[in-house]
Amino acid sequence: MSLDRLIEKIKETENPSVVGLDPKLDYVPTFIKEKAFEKDGMTLKAAAKAILTFNKGIIDAICDVVPAIKPQAAYYEMYGYHGVKTLYKTIQYAKEKGMFVMTDGKRNDIGATMEAYATAHLGTTLVGEESIDAFGADALTVNGYLGTDGIAPLLKICKEKDKGIFVLVKTSNQSSGELQDLKIGDKTVYEVMGDMCEKWGAEDMGKYGYSGVGAVVGATYPEQLEEMRAKLPHTFFLVPGYGAQGGGAAGVAKAFDKNGMGAIVNSSRAVMCAYQKGGYDEKDYALAALNEVLRMKKDITDAL
Amino acid sequence: MSLDRLIEKIKETENPSVVGLDPKLDYVPTFIKEKAFEKDGMTLKAAAKAILTFNKGIIDAICDVVPAIKPQAAYYEMYGYHGVKTLYKTIQYAKEKGMFVMTDGKRNDIGATMEAYATAHLGTTLVGEESIDAFGADALTVNGYLGTDGIAPLLKICKEKDKGIFVLVKTSNQSSGELQDLKIGDKTVYEVMGDMCEKWGAEDMGKYGYSGVGAVVGATYPEQLEEMRAKLPHTFFLVPGYGAQGGGAAGVAKAFDKNGMGAIVNSSRAVMCAYQKGGYDEKDYALAALNEVLRMKKDITDAL
Repeated sequence: MSLDRLIEKIKETENPSVVGLDPKLDYVPTFIKEKAFEKDGMTLKAAAKAILTFNKGIIDAICDVVPAIKPQAAYYEMYGYHGVKTLYKTIQYAKEKGMFVMTDGKRNDIGATMEAYATAHLGTTLVGEESIDAFGADALTVNGYLGTDGIAPLLKICKEKDKGIFVLVKTSNQSSGELQDLKIGDKTVYEVMGDMCEKWGAEDMGKYGYSGVGAVVGATYPEQLEEMRAKLPHTFFLVPGYGAQGGGAAGVAKAFDKNGMGAIVNSSRAVMCAYQKGGYDEKDYALAALNEVLRMKKDITDAL
Repeated sequence: MSLDRLIEKIKETENPSVVGLDPKLDYVPTFIKEKAFEKDGMTLKAAAKAILTFNKGIIDAICDVVPAIKPQAAYYEMYGYHGVKTLYKTIQYAKEKGMFVMTDGKRNDIGATMEAYATAHLGTTLVGEESIDAFGADALTVNGYLGTDGIAPLLKICKEKDKGIFVLVKTSNQSSGELQDLKIGDKTVYEVMGDMCEKWGAEDMGKYGYSGVGAVVGATYPEQLEEMRAKLPHTFFLVPGYGAQGGGAAGVAKAFDKNGMGAIVNSSRAVMCAYQKGGYDEKDYALAALNEVLRMKKDITDAL
């Protein structure tokens, strides 16, 4: 267990950012959609195939300059089991291209059921005598509301398979404070959750000083980012909310340690929909995504 | 929005219990597995098909005496997109048989992404000019850690489509107290979450006095069940943890109001694996499930 493979990919690409692949059908260029509809009609199957084509185009364009992708499960489930097949194929394609894949599923449940989620997304499923990757991601986002026995099954599989998790600590949305900012004694709920991340991660530390248990801390709350960076020295941060949600580079810089490590910043819509801005032909959506990714890399690394 | 359709099914069957379909391949009788392996080898596809056959057998046996099923998404995701196809087909089959279907996914995310989950599991997905059920359940379990803007998209779809949600309040697992029992002022975290359920549900109350926003409260904590029943008069309870996890009928009785309504009790493994106990031939797994369901119904209603 650890996030060392992710950290190494970040060093290799000199880019602490991740592209969120949250592909609504609206984001997919018309020429891709039309071709899919022609073949399979206006069906979930056609939608799912169009999204896969779109994702592959983006992955091809960015795989040498971005260390990781973060597909968001919701946008695949929206297209039913066909969409979930596209999630699987997207994960496999990105891995073939050498990328680190973090499935954003925010999964959570009690022991035996959490074991099934861990097996599904990070482990291998036993069928008769065969062990098979059901999805085969490198990391999974999870929700720690159920406490240690909702996390322990993940830690076991992370150790066995050299994979990691990211636990929701302080989310990027406006109402995140309704529960997360409330005080338990002299700590907030998100601080309590952060402390649990340090505790869960202590079992197996990676060689760069970060454990396999990361935390999700939103770019939209720079003060909390800075505070949590100081308090959770062994917890790697996944930082959503940069760009479309309003988080800026100066803010996200606070997620990093003094060596410019310890965090990865996500951008989804701004990359996927880059072609819709700035006068691109929709056929050049992948080039537009690449340009946005390079702009973002410079924006963040300049701020570090 | 409301859980009225569920309440009416409970009245009709005079049975406040739900069967959790959490089918590990180990639970499936050998004759079903062998047939599937013969056709498709030891593959995720074969496993998923075997599980669908198993589920249909149980649904056929119980659909007239049990109001609802609760498929747990984790156990389907474990078999990859083939497993997720079985989830879809299980939901559709149970609905055809007149059952109310609660997908246990404990989904959670911020606004736009939660909207995608709501669309996926409760709403309809727009593809070109077609509106299609991606999964089409009647209710979904969710995690409220992200606050109101992670719940609002669900409420909108629940209103439009007459569907409901169940928010995790006090879960049935041993470590649930690590966060949920901590004190925020004079309230516990789970009480704060319970209050949010009442607030979220207030927008649209059903005709039986319960809103479309239910709560998950574990059978393994009877004191908290009793306390929450008193404090959350408009919140319908989904009660896991009966049977295999150790919750007894006297305990779960505390989840009900003075009219014997207001809650539904889940049992999963004890029903699915009933044939493994008590000397059944494995071919009679569905009969064994029916007998266990009837025993459970009597156990719970006797305690009310």
